Amino acid sequence: MPYDFETVINRRHTNAVKWDVKDNELPMWVADMDFATAPEITAALTKRAQFGIFGYEEVPTAYYQAVADWWAQEHAFRPQLDWLLFCTGVVPAISSIVRKMTAPGDNVVVQAPVYNIFYHSIENNGRHTLASNLVNENDQYRIDWDDLERKLAAPLTTMMILCNPQNPIGIVWSRATLQRIGELALKHHVLVVADEIHCDLTLNGNQYVPFASLSDVVAANSISCVSPSKTFNVAALHAATLIIPDENVRALVSRGINNDELAEPNSFAIPGSIAAYTQGKTWVHELRTKIAANQRQVAQFVATELPQVKLIEAQATYLLWLDVSQITTDSAALAQFIRKATGLFLSAGDVYRGDGNQFLRMNVACPTAELTDGLARLKRGIRAYLTTK
Amino acid sequence: MPYDFETVINRRHTNAVKWDVKDNELPMWVADMDFATAPEITAALTKRAQFGIFGYEEVPTAYYQAVADWWAQEHAFRPQLDWLLFCTGVVPAISSIVRKMTAPGDNVVVQAPVYNIFYHSIENNGRHTLASNLVNENDQYRIDWDDLERKLAAPLTTMMILCNPQNPIGIVWSRATLQRIGELALKHHVLVVADEIHCDLTLNGNQYVPFASLSDVVAANSISCVSPSKTFNVAALHAATLIIPDENVRALVSRGINNDELAEPNSFAIPGSIAAYTQGKTWVHELRTKIAANQRQVAQFVATELPQVKLIEAQATYLLWLDVSQITTDSAALAQFIRKATGLFLSAGDVYRGDGNQFLRMNVACPTAELTDGLARLKRGIRAYLTTK
Repeated sequence: MPYDFETVINRRHTNAVKWDVKDNELPMWVADMDFATAPEITAALTKRAQFGIFGYEEVPTAYYQAVADWWAQEHAFRPQLDWLLFCTGVVPAISSIVRKMTAPGDNVVVQAPVYNIFYHSIENNGRHTLASNLVNENDQYRIDWDDLERKLAAPLTTMMILCNPQNPIGIVWSRATLQRIGELALKHHVLVVADEIHCDLTLNGNQYVPFASLSDVVAANSISCVSPSKTFNVAALHAATLIIPDENVRALVSRGINNDELAEPNSFAIPGSIAAYTQGKTWVHELRTKIAANQRQVAQFVATELPQVKLIEAQATYLLWLDVSQITTDSAALAQFIRKATGLFLSAGDVYRGDGNQFLRMNVACPTAELTDGLARLKRGIRAYLTTK
Repeated sequence: MPYDFETVINRRHTNAVKWDVKDNELPMWVADMDFATAPEITAALTKRAQFGIFGYEEVPTAYYQAVADWWAQEHAFRPQLDWLLFCTGVVPAISSIVRKMTAPGDNVVVQAPVYNIFYHSIENNGRHTLASNLVNENDQYRIDWDDLERKLAAPLTTMMILCNPQNPIGIVWSRATLQRIGELALKHHVLVVADEIHCDLTLNGNQYVPFASLSDVVAANSISCVSPSKTFNVAALHAATLIIPDENVRALVSRGINNDELAEPNSFAIPGSIAAYTQGKTWVHELRTKIAANQRQVAQFVATELPQVKLIEAQATYLLWLDVSQITTDSAALAQFIRKATGLFLSAGDVYRGDGNQFLRMNVACPTAELTDGLARLKRGIRAYLTTK
């Protein structure tokens, strides 16, 4: 592989949220990779820095063209340019959409366990979360369709936030599943917001289906949120794109994100994103191979060294969902114990709700040396925890 | 001067909002300078770009320390570190503060003519603007204190947005004036939000007084918004700081900007700001000299070539307020005429309300060659306009 996913880069004391840990600690929590981004992006950002003027920036057509071309080439779906809106991030967009497209007191449906920040976007804005929990059967999660429909049909439900692919479980939803969700949402007058931030990081041949590529009527009732953030490890580039096929929905959301001051790009967001989407393809493909290899390493390690732990196989994302139900139903206490005993900092699954209290989330977007260290710490931590029982 | 304020840099087709104009047009409108920023900032941003990882970024103490040191050295006032909050911009902060600290339907007092975006922050969030117009007497603007107090005392008034120094007139408010405003606001239970974004660009020895440096009780009833944005021409760095002495106000505003997704820095905001505040002093001092010289050039030109126009002398900012009341009371039509006839793009004063319909705002933060071109166009435009009357 021409790109380097093995060099360990020291990120301590660099203002990185992920690495704001003690010197003996190893962070494998927040969704931020320990790989340098594609060198093509670094080159574009360096060039932008050197230009030396950083005044008010606007979004050129070339940005939207780069997004549309990427989706066409990578995901066999070309959104129309006029469907696209720039936003400073997926989470900012979701929060703004919740405020604009629902009323205080409304229900927003999610499928727990799911990305915890959805709950903040919903609840901090005075709306209620209505979770249709995913059901884990034989290490595979499925949708309880009756439950989902009941919750979409609830009189106060006006929005559903869908995670596609799903974080933290790593599910790549099929076209049939997405279409069925979309039709149920339509039937019950519920707007679908699809967070597709992990869509480029599918593994082992799994194919992501853009929500906006579903039937016209289903797509017209949706807002999809995408970004180079996870794909290229550029969370603090503050760049995302909203795909909104319906003109009325788009006009409202555009007004919302402008009013919330989330529609203007910083000096680096545009050149960084254009470089990513026009020159980053090979890098991403190699990254996927590396993440898949890291998942295999974890799977083998868990199978041979940690029989009490089960890995739910991720079809996408670099976030692995570790079933610790044989050890505890309080994954927060377990995560805290492991961190204190070994320095390994994992995400406790309880924050994702649903059955997350029986899971840990492990970020494996790191060089092999780091992963190997992390797994050794995990084994030590779990053994020590079991000894205390 | 070791720094270069004379080279004309071609910003056409660089995604600059200011320069999104026709090829024959010369933009002297939005508050964005045609000077490259301090080379020390460019170096810091280049270094950050080259690091190559752009994950979630946090605000280190070194950032707040740099802000506090700058205020101590440049403005003889040291804010406590724990008073300071990072935000992605002054306008985003003001919008968020309006939402958090007032209720829909409340009045927010401003002193018109004033920065037009204040009206958006107030009215787009469902609040009412209550303007206490500044009074122009013999080319000097003064506050009508009775009118201001009446408006602060109105039962629905809960906030005042103060522009210090004032844009577009360029007034540097005295300590006595600010203290009197602050006491009136206190008396009538009105929170003061001081936009101090132009504070570093005072001219000809005028001294800016930080609102937070007023008496303790007055300061405790205020939020000051500062940024390297105007000072260093880094609007799209997306970095600002809120100075909030009162713990309760600070807790509420912090919650507000976090909820509105305006509290997280992009990868460049922190290193760029630290470089500005720790290494940018000499550059700013030279910039001030250049802006003062540009104002003198305009004053001389107007006095000799455009007797129908009066320049209101700016004590701060690079935005000049040109009185065209002898020509028209419809400055929007005049601005449009000048743009069409000569390509010179000025801001029409009407958007600032108050008596802005009799004024044009001219941005003179540019190399001499550009300013000279702009003045020649202004003369041509006004002569042509007078011929049509």
